[in-house]
Amino acid sequence: MQFATQTGNPWSATEFRAELYALEGSYWDRHPFHRRLHEGRLDKEHLRLWAANRWYYQRCLPQKDAAIIANCPLPEVRRQWLARIVYHDGVDAESGGAQKWLRLAEAVGLGREEVLSERLVLPGVRFAVDAYLDFARRRPWLEAVASGLTELFSPNLLVYRLGRMREHYPWIAEDGFAYFTARIDVVGDEGRSLLDLVVAHAETRAQQEACVAALAFKCAVLQGILDSLDYHTGGRW
Amino acid sequence: MQFATQTGNPWSATEFRAELYALEGSYWDRHPFHRRLHEGRLDKEHLRLWAANRWYYQRCLPQKDAAIIANCPLPEVRRQWLARIVYHDGVDAESGGAQKWLRLAEAVGLGREEVLSERLVLPGVRFAVDAYLDFARRRPWLEAVASGLTELFSPNLLVYRLGRMREHYPWIAEDGFAYFTARIDVVGDEGRSLLDLVVAHAETRAQQEACVAALAFKCAVLQGILDSLDYHTGGRW
Repeated sequence: MQFATQTGNPWSATEFRAELYALEGSYWDRHPFHRRLHEGRLDKEHLRLWAANRWYYQRCLPQKDAAIIANCPLPEVRRQWLARIVYHDGVDAESGGAQKWLRLAEAVGLGREEVLSERLVLPGVRFAVDAYLDFARRRPWLEAVASGLTELFSPNLLVYRLGRMREHYPWIAEDGFAYFTARIDVVGDEGRSLLDLVVAHAETRAQQEACVAALAFKCAVLQGILDSLDYHTGGRW
Repeated sequence: MQFATQTGNPWSATEFRAELYALEGSYWDRHPFHRRLHEGRLDKEHLRLWAANRWYYQRCLPQKDAAIIANCPLPEVRRQWLARIVYHDGVDAESGGAQKWLRLAEAVGLGREEVLSERLVLPGVRFAVDAYLDFARRRPWLEAVASGLTELFSPNLLVYRLGRMREHYPWIAEDGFAYFTARIDVVGDEGRSLLDLVVAHAETRAQQEACVAALAFKCAVLQGILDSLDYHTGGRW
């Protein structure tokens, strides 16, 4: 995970896209913890730990997106990115993606206060998520934006997960899946417009390589989250 | 791991010390990975992964100490703390604690370049160590100093580890243990003077509680390192 950049001619848009998609194998969809989740091998306590820890990730996202806006000098990008903050935070205390995640947490049996207190958050999850927020605050906006390109890999995962969870955990009330159904509706378009944005603004080879490194970093963040969850629920690498 | 502080009268020095020592149970000495290490249950590949990942922690320490000095307005504290940078970095390229750790890494069969490239560093280890460095950079110097109070708990661990490693891994050349023998010579005195420093400068209850929270944070950092190592070497929580 060295982020050194090399000199060279810029990749073509096609080459650059291929370099980004080459990281799909590092995405967390086939992580041992997700396999256990999707195969119905998690018990209620495991699902609660997952929901409470993933909450810590969800709650950092609007701050991550605001950090990107804070570092971006281009009003057209800032205008586009603002919708992401609204997506997570909603337009009032009852709407927004974060609230939908809390409904999932409640549907698996957690109390809202228990989730918000963050006392179930594992050290490794906290450090991975904090690293992601720190990255968005300190790196150039283009790299922080590129780290979100995991969206390219997530549509299939979200659809697959929703199906497997309905199948294996039928005791979870349908309202608990609102986060996933809402996300499935938008993530494909978000990923495509995000890719267009990154390709348009990464002009030099060094910028392109920094974007690839940022996506690799994000994959490591997601792996760090699941490594911790798997370890603390009796899984093995 | 909420770091909220409460109001109240300052603890006495005795009470404050007791609050700090109460965290000894959160120290990493009895972590499952350390148990495997001390009971001879790690193979050579596991020891190599341990040495390569712990290197990432060792190499961050002089930067962590410099961040503390950078945030400290008191020349008498800065003068005292400077010795820690020299301890890690040495007075030339061959001396210093970091170099001694590299000798251990070589003694367990790693190439120096392999260690320095950091390609064996696990995501969870990287994020935990980065969180520690970030804490030292961003928090008041007194809290960053207090996070080092894990030194209070380490003398027994270091002596115990050295004995068990000589017993269970006799193929490690004695030169590889130079880091531990040097550390055992100084860590008791360092811990005591560190405790005196923290007790002297934490004047308000809020500062005292922040120091206790900083030590709890550091214990979580160390746990995060070992959680990752244990998970990736087939251990279970």
